[in-house]
Amino acid sequence: MDGESKLVGRVARAFRSQTGASHTSGLRLGIGDDAAILSSGGKKEWVLSCDAFLEGVHFLTDTHPADSVGFKSLVRAASDLAAMGATPRFFLLTLAIPARRTGTWLDEFLRGMARAARSMKMTLAGGDTTKSNAVSISITVVGEIAGGRAVTRAGARPGDLIYVSGTLGRAQLGLDLLVHGNLSGKKRRGVSAKDRAMEGLLCPHLYPSAKLELGAWLARHRVASAMMDISDGLSTDLTRLCTASGVGAQIQSAAIPLVVLPAALSKGSGRLKFHPLQMALQGGEDYELLFTVSPRNAKKLRAAPRFSQLRQIGKVTRGKGIVLTNRKAGKSRLKPQGWDPFGS
Amino acid sequence: MDGESKLVGRVARAFRSQTGASHTSGLRLGIGDDAAILSSGGKKEWVLSCDAFLEGVHFLTDTHPADSVGFKSLVRAASDLAAMGATPRFFLLTLAIPARRTGTWLDEFLRGMARAARSMKMTLAGGDTTKSNAVSISITVVGEIAGGRAVTRAGARPGDLIYVSGTLGRAQLGLDLLVHGNLSGKKRRGVSAKDRAMEGLLCPHLYPSAKLELGAWLARHRVASAMMDISDGLSTDLTRLCTASGVGAQIQSAAIPLVVLPAALSKGSGRLKFHPLQMALQGGEDYELLFTVSPRNAKKLRAAPRFSQLRQIGKVTRGKGIVLTNRKAGKSRLKPQGWDPFGS
Repeated sequence: MDGESKLVGRVARAFRSQTGASHTSGLRLGIGDDAAILSSGGKKEWVLSCDAFLEGVHFLTDTHPADSVGFKSLVRAASDLAAMGATPRFFLLTLAIPARRTGTWLDEFLRGMARAARSMKMTLAGGDTTKSNAVSISITVVGEIAGGRAVTRAGARPGDLIYVSGTLGRAQLGLDLLVHGNLSGKKRRGVSAKDRAMEGLLCPHLYPSAKLELGAWLARHRVASAMMDISDGLSTDLTRLCTASGVGAQIQSAAIPLVVLPAALSKGSGRLKFHPLQMALQGGEDYELLFTVSPRNAKKLRAAPRFSQLRQIGKVTRGKGIVLTNRKAGKSRLKPQGWDPFGS
Repeated sequence: MDGESKLVGRVARAFRSQTGASHTSGLRLGIGDDAAILSSGGKKEWVLSCDAFLEGVHFLTDTHPADSVGFKSLVRAASDLAAMGATPRFFLLTLAIPARRTGTWLDEFLRGMARAARSMKMTLAGGDTTKSNAVSISITVVGEIAGGRAVTRAGARPGDLIYVSGTLGRAQLGLDLLVHGNLSGKKRRGVSAKDRAMEGLLCPHLYPSAKLELGAWLARHRVASAMMDISDGLSTDLTRLCTASGVGAQIQSAAIPLVVLPAALSKGSGRLKFHPLQMALQGGEDYELLFTVSPRNAKKLRAAPRFSQLRQIGKVTRGKGIVLTNRKAGKSRLKPQGWDPFGS
């Protein structure tokens, strides 16, 4: 189990004794999934999730443009709603910033966040602001979904097919180019073909998108048996989904959609190390969806939004653990080796 | 206007253009009050609020026991629900901590928070954990209330009576004793009468309580016309309530319930400066309720929980600004001089 999952387990245990039925009426799903589900007995349920985005941990103010920080912090949080199949509606913003960031930096940050909010049709419903030594953002997102339709991590069954919604490792490549590739996110208005290609490659890292339409479709049509978003790398997130469902998995490395570095960049990319499979398995922040579909539902999937970008990467198995099949290297155990703030 | 209110205004403006009716359906009250109200058309409404509690800004890990940090961070957030008259139900915890705090410190923190959760019958519904250089806590609380009964800051009318729910400045006194009074929150098991008195005086700062029962009663019986909790000092919070309601206020300093220092502590309290009126007007974190009542509703108030501790401190007036009447000094304008993270 990864360090963060262990810590979440400790937090959950500290509060477990109190979760009697009288306290939890209205709570359909609690700690441990992508989001919590609140029901007030009506046709709709509210889906809630929160996400921290911290200077020095998740972004660097010298490297990341302020509008990217604002944009991405909201998309990250909304991706947890996509992962349940919910439609984003509102968000609460807790913002702690140093006084020196309350000028232009704050304006650009807010502009980026407002752009993300518009694109996802989300409304700011409240928040809290205070000062701090470093920028600290915590966002709570509220989505809605028809009662009983939310897709959790726990529904995968042996024999189900495992899908991902798009190319993995793109965000890691963008980060690597930004940090090691002699590029600055703040000065990325390129003129040459190489510069423009670079710009496009930075986008998945700086301005990601949540797969809201696909998530909502999969939930509405009851096509996915389990679902989550890939925020910490496929190896870590698939392990979490399998653990929640009490199953194992077999995946083929050749089936995983990997990043391809454009020819214009194959030389002169600085200290960048380019390992597409490692980027997919261990790189975080792709915000693609990882979901399972029973064989009898697989046909329905053809009507899904952007079906052509979906890839079946393996199957759910009985037992525990994930087996990765590689044409050259054969079979190996896949350990969670993605982003883990409390990893050793 | 205080610095934090100005900043909240800037944040609200950045997102204002998008709050069309299509986006906000279901949102009964948005940014600017103590909490947001979500309605899904049923009998109950959900009330949401978030609150940041940061090491170095709101607490000091060398001074404040970890269980106090856990306890208080949840109570602070829940106080915003009391301020609307809502009953707390669930909370989401965003916790960023350094690796060195994941041992005993985290256990004690969680124990304190679990104690607060039990006492307020709140259930942990989700959250996010990550690492950081300093402890950073952000809590989103979810309460429920009968549809249309939530009390906002905006309902005060000229002629309404202004009440506070208890002694003001107690938390500031506790903080002053802790920081300047040769006392440590971690070593406060006293044996002498003086030590025991000290212990009691630290409690309002270390282990505050949210006035949930009173808030819910005032909302349920439609007795309060406007309400908020006093978290940043009476001068600042009364100004906010008056601004939201578009009214002014007259208050009498002699009517404000002030802290009294026990005789055993009147000597030897270190570098402590003891100004009860300043503590009430400028000291934060009391989490008492500030509310207004129309003259015809004032009689009903006698049936309120802990009625004997309610004090009428003044009246709502037409026009703007707050006039403080002092027996000795006469009348003066009361400026917001409470806790303001972005104050000059």
